[in-house]
Amino acid sequence: MQNFVFHNPTKILFGKGTIPAIGPETVAFGTRVLLVYGSGSIKRNGVYQQVTDSLLKAGAEIVEHPGVQSNPVLSHVQEGITLAKKQKCQVICAVGGGSVIDEAKAICAGAVVNYDVWKFFTGKKSVTCPLPLTTVLTLAASGSEMNSGMVITNEETRQKFGFANKKLYPKTSILDPEATYTVPADYTVYGAVDAIAHVLEFYFTTQDPATPVQDRLMEGLIINAMESCDRVLADLYDYQGRADLMWTATLALNGLTAAGLGKVGFPMHLIEHSLSALYNVPHGAGLSAVISGWMRLQCQATPQRFAQFAERIFDLRSGSTEERAQKGIDALKQWFEKVRSPTSLAALKIPAQDIPKIAENAVTLASVWRMPDYDCERIQTILAGC
Amino acid sequence: MQNFVFHNPTKILFGKGTIPAIGPETVAFGTRVLLVYGSGSIKRNGVYQQVTDSLLKAGAEIVEHPGVQSNPVLSHVQEGITLAKKQKCQVICAVGGGSVIDEAKAICAGAVVNYDVWKFFTGKKSVTCPLPLTTVLTLAASGSEMNSGMVITNEETRQKFGFANKKLYPKTSILDPEATYTVPADYTVYGAVDAIAHVLEFYFTTQDPATPVQDRLMEGLIINAMESCDRVLADLYDYQGRADLMWTATLALNGLTAAGLGKVGFPMHLIEHSLSALYNVPHGAGLSAVISGWMRLQCQATPQRFAQFAERIFDLRSGSTEERAQKGIDALKQWFEKVRSPTSLAALKIPAQDIPKIAENAVTLASVWRMPDYDCERIQTILAGC
Repeated sequence: MQNFVFHNPTKILFGKGTIPAIGPETVAFGTRVLLVYGSGSIKRNGVYQQVTDSLLKAGAEIVEHPGVQSNPVLSHVQEGITLAKKQKCQVICAVGGGSVIDEAKAICAGAVVNYDVWKFFTGKKSVTCPLPLTTVLTLAASGSEMNSGMVITNEETRQKFGFANKKLYPKTSILDPEATYTVPADYTVYGAVDAIAHVLEFYFTTQDPATPVQDRLMEGLIINAMESCDRVLADLYDYQGRADLMWTATLALNGLTAAGLGKVGFPMHLIEHSLSALYNVPHGAGLSAVISGWMRLQCQATPQRFAQFAERIFDLRSGSTEERAQKGIDALKQWFEKVRSPTSLAALKIPAQDIPKIAENAVTLASVWRMPDYDCERIQTILAGC
Repeated sequence: MQNFVFHNPTKILFGKGTIPAIGPETVAFGTRVLLVYGSGSIKRNGVYQQVTDSLLKAGAEIVEHPGVQSNPVLSHVQEGITLAKKQKCQVICAVGGGSVIDEAKAICAGAVVNYDVWKFFTGKKSVTCPLPLTTVLTLAASGSEMNSGMVITNEETRQKFGFANKKLYPKTSILDPEATYTVPADYTVYGAVDAIAHVLEFYFTTQDPATPVQDRLMEGLIINAMESCDRVLADLYDYQGRADLMWTATLALNGLTAAGLGKVGFPMHLIEHSLSALYNVPHGAGLSAVISGWMRLQCQATPQRFAQFAERIFDLRSGSTEERAQKGIDALKQWFEKVRSPTSLAALKIPAQDIPKIAENAVTLASVWRMPDYDCERIQTILAGC
């Protein structure tokens, strides 16, 4: 176990009927509220109405910033920042999935400075005193509702970059599983894949194998992400399945899994970010296309770790270490196939001849994320196995 | 999954060499510091020196309140409150195990009011604006370093009562596993038993069986508490074992395990509190004496839950639900015996004829904790099986 700091100050309100609390939770930080949301699905499922009713009842003046797209883009973040400044917003309320919350965090950071917000993403500036943020979550996936990170795509440079800052934890996040009922099967799966990927990244990139407490925690989350996803696919209105998946995805990237692991990386996200920056594929779909290829390469370095994964996640106990390791990778891939998440570049309709271009894009981010091991050659090798 | 609020604002600094951070972390809340500690073991193992060096270097004026005993008593809390008021302390720094931190929390609450602090424990008053608290942990056991609860014994009334208030989370807790090297084998075991009991209480008293995320989390913690304890018993200076046990005990009662479980209780702690109030037995020793007897009774109501426990903790997969359930209870008892923790009242030298007296004491607390199911007869039945 390596030294760590764990400090997650986000307040979570979880469960049925919790959305009407968003008004008081938000105006506690100011009455001029920038309401950030996406393409309007929250208007169709009633969440928008619940949120605005609660905000207005609590005395908020609402400034709307709709239209956040999945894989949120820098130009729209900049529009939000301009609006927040012009309207003198004191607090931001994000209603949506990870894309909406990520964009809202970027606006929180950018609305109080006089330089381009992209400087935070390239590491040229550091966040000091951002606007406070509250959220209402409508998609179980990214964990952004209880962490301090975000990912934004710069359309001009075609870079999908991310950063985290401890001042950007949401103050309060409301997680009502019923708000996810209308998420269709495919995006429910992509959300589960994203949560699983968050755990796998840390599980397999830790340099410290002596983290048994964290291992059990991570293994439990992976099992739960798969099992709860299966239950939701059988019935999209299964409250308990939606609730389990939602809380699992939150715990999968709120800092807890990483505690004590030392330096960890996001190699699968690194490569996927290039796929969605270049082809705008859903994040979870891009991840499942990359995961098996990455695992097969990584497995050569740490087969014992992969054997533990196989044994504890899939109860695969027979065979040599290498055999069990391979069986575990196959079992995960089979689960992806069962829930119809892409498991290859071909399934995403990305031609093999694009691999050098993708690798070139990913290497730029690898440099920002300080992952020198991920050079063009290595990334191409992984992609060739996808 | 039931609705819940999760909000744990404590900052954890974990690992080797982290104690010198206590000065800056504490004086951030004021320079007049009440330093609360126990019988002086921290002077023998060097922790006292590290803490006071850091506090003084950070500009603190230290007022000392030593002498906290295990199962901390109300009269000593009251002395601490008088001292904190007289010396106009602005912040409290607790250095020790759960007893020291619990007493420090009670002083934090009591130092700012003009009535008896016991009113908080009997539910007659509620905490409003306590002094801030920082801690340096020296025993893996209670979880008090990352929760808002405390337990104090009123020697006059012979009541061991507890309460929690969200304003009493420590601001910062420093967890250096090396500070627990000098904890002897028996108290290391009692600490592990305490952590296990915290998880078992919630695991077996939840009214909602549909909490798979929480189940895996709790099961992982129980396994880790046992495994890390075993490793520490083999070598008291095993850093990784000490670290795993320390973080496991913290996670076992920081609010995370209870999320979504709905109403849960502390029936084993309820009965144990009477044992330590009446006989001053170590808390963990009292718990292991009670646990098997309580489990055998509870198992009749929810055998399926106990079978899951047996399967996932001890890999016991054969036999009927009832048979597996019983095997799981036996396996836990065998582990207690292996690590030499008492498994009966007799092992604590408490005669069977005292059972009515113990039950009478426990019923008073059951009333405060609103556990009407735990009447004299039921408690006597459990104790008769211990």
